[in-house]
Amino acid sequence: MTATNAERFAAALSQTAEAIEKTLDACLPPPVDIPGEGPLIAAMRYAVMGGGKRLRAFLAVEAGRITGAPRHGTLRAGAALECLHAYSLVHDDLPAMDDDDLRRGKPTVHRAWDEATAILAGDALQTEAFRILANEETHGDALVRARCVLRLAEASGAAGMVGGQALDLAAEAGHAHQDAAAVKRLQAMKTGALLQASAEIGALLGQAARAHLEAISTYAAALGEAFQIADDLLDVEGDEAEVGKRVGKDAGAGKATFVDILGLEGAKARARQLADEAAAALAPFGEDAALLSAAAYFVVDRKS
Amino acid sequence: MTATNAERFAAALSQTAEAIEKTLDACLPPPVDIPGEGPLIAAMRYAVMGGGKRLRAFLAVEAGRITGAPRHGTLRAGAALECLHAYSLVHDDLPAMDDDDLRRGKPTVHRAWDEATAILAGDALQTEAFRILANEETHGDALVRARCVLRLAEASGAAGMVGGQALDLAAEAGHAHQDAAAVKRLQAMKTGALLQASAEIGALLGQAARAHLEAISTYAAALGEAFQIADDLLDVEGDEAEVGKRVGKDAGAGKATFVDILGLEGAKARARQLADEAAAALAPFGEDAALLSAAAYFVVDRKS
Repeated sequence: MTATNAERFAAALSQTAEAIEKTLDACLPPPVDIPGEGPLIAAMRYAVMGGGKRLRAFLAVEAGRITGAPRHGTLRAGAALECLHAYSLVHDDLPAMDDDDLRRGKPTVHRAWDEATAILAGDALQTEAFRILANEETHGDALVRARCVLRLAEASGAAGMVGGQALDLAAEAGHAHQDAAAVKRLQAMKTGALLQASAEIGALLGQAARAHLEAISTYAAALGEAFQIADDLLDVEGDEAEVGKRVGKDAGAGKATFVDILGLEGAKARARQLADEAAAALAPFGEDAALLSAAAYFVVDRKS
Repeated sequence: MTATNAERFAAALSQTAEAIEKTLDACLPPPVDIPGEGPLIAAMRYAVMGGGKRLRAFLAVEAGRITGAPRHGTLRAGAALECLHAYSLVHDDLPAMDDDDLRRGKPTVHRAWDEATAILAGDALQTEAFRILANEETHGDALVRARCVLRLAEASGAAGMVGGQALDLAAEAGHAHQDAAAVKRLQAMKTGALLQASAEIGALLGQAARAHLEAISTYAAALGEAFQIADDLLDVEGDEAEVGKRVGKDAGAGKATFVDILGLEGAKARARQLADEAAAALAPFGEDAALLSAAAYFVVDRKS
């Protein structure tokens, strides 16, 4: 990636993040001063607002832009995806799961409030994602909205993100034989599925032709795998303060990662190869896809 | 309700429950023998299959029938509603929430498996509800599907069921002043919203005219309140073996119920009055709504 592309990408990512912050603020229930309800809404807003790279939202917004989707709808879809992602983080951090105290350098929701509030805030953030997508403000054509809802549900349920988290917990408990295929499947479900759905939902909002939708799907699948390899590399080589959460967790948990399977240099080479594959898949869009292409290299090169 | 109506209703309820069981079996992911994923899917199926009155499904199926909806779609919507309801029960039973060991006379999910599996199974059941509704098998018209998704999301998120549960936890912790209006709002959110949405989703699938949709909405709102008053009465007067879960919980938790506010006899009278109101709202459908009408009296008279 040339310096110029990297700079343009960084600017676009931060611009999207700002717009998503505003969209989330407008979509989420406003703060209230009612016992029980107040903390629930505050915890939802805390979990999803004020942080994160907004990579999933960026993928939706950019895939939407290059396929001609109205920007307002792609921002709403981006907000929905960030709600879904935030819910998964809140639940993953719970004591019964990864038992984490910090997320993005701040106390996790069950630390800042309590476990019950964290469970409910996660639950409501998941609902919120579907509520935002299904609303006619997201797209005027109901078929587009129904397809976006279906795509998100497929990617985030038992066959996708939640299933991947269940596989991950079994792996950490040493209950699963983990060869390369198993690690790849786990990561594709846990992280890849939602990243892929994010880009595809953007293209659905753009009512992209089948070939364009498939190109974006191929791109996002490669980006998703690169993302997870980079995550495993950060867990080995990353700086805790910069990453914003505990590192070295995977080695401590004794579960297999891409680094175990490919080796340190092999993992780095594979991540870069996947970024190349992702970028190549965008050929049908030409120069218009430069930012999405840059996103694939960003995912590999990121420090957090 | 005449004996005949009560008998017809009982037969219809059990017939719907059987059909919902088959629909759930067809919609849910099939059992697999993979560590992590196997227990997740087994826990999902355990939580939602093999029990319950299927009242929410019945409301959707019957409201759909009297408004002309295709039966296959109303059964799928019924299955989706039961997935949503089951997810809420699995999470409500968790140690950080109500900490219950029994549900419908069987060990709760976190007792039969563990807390992590219960959190994830609940999460995936919520996703499953939206996946089933958004699929074109549920209705050929995407606008109908999008409306059903939206209606379910509104009823079950922070402004509905999850918000009601947060209010309930605050009430149990003694953090909330609970006058009659607060108890009514809490119950309307926690239980009423999903019951109301169930009947409305049936009518949406039937593409009912606005007046008919409103009649069904009015009916279901009254039924929902009657349901909760009956629940409070069962908590005071019910038999634990018959109810299938602990009774006397509310008094133990020191939170206000309809019985506290209306008195025992007052609560019984109010429940019956609400059943009358629910039945009256169905007037536009004439004799065709006899089963829905019977459902309102069943809700008041039930022993579990």
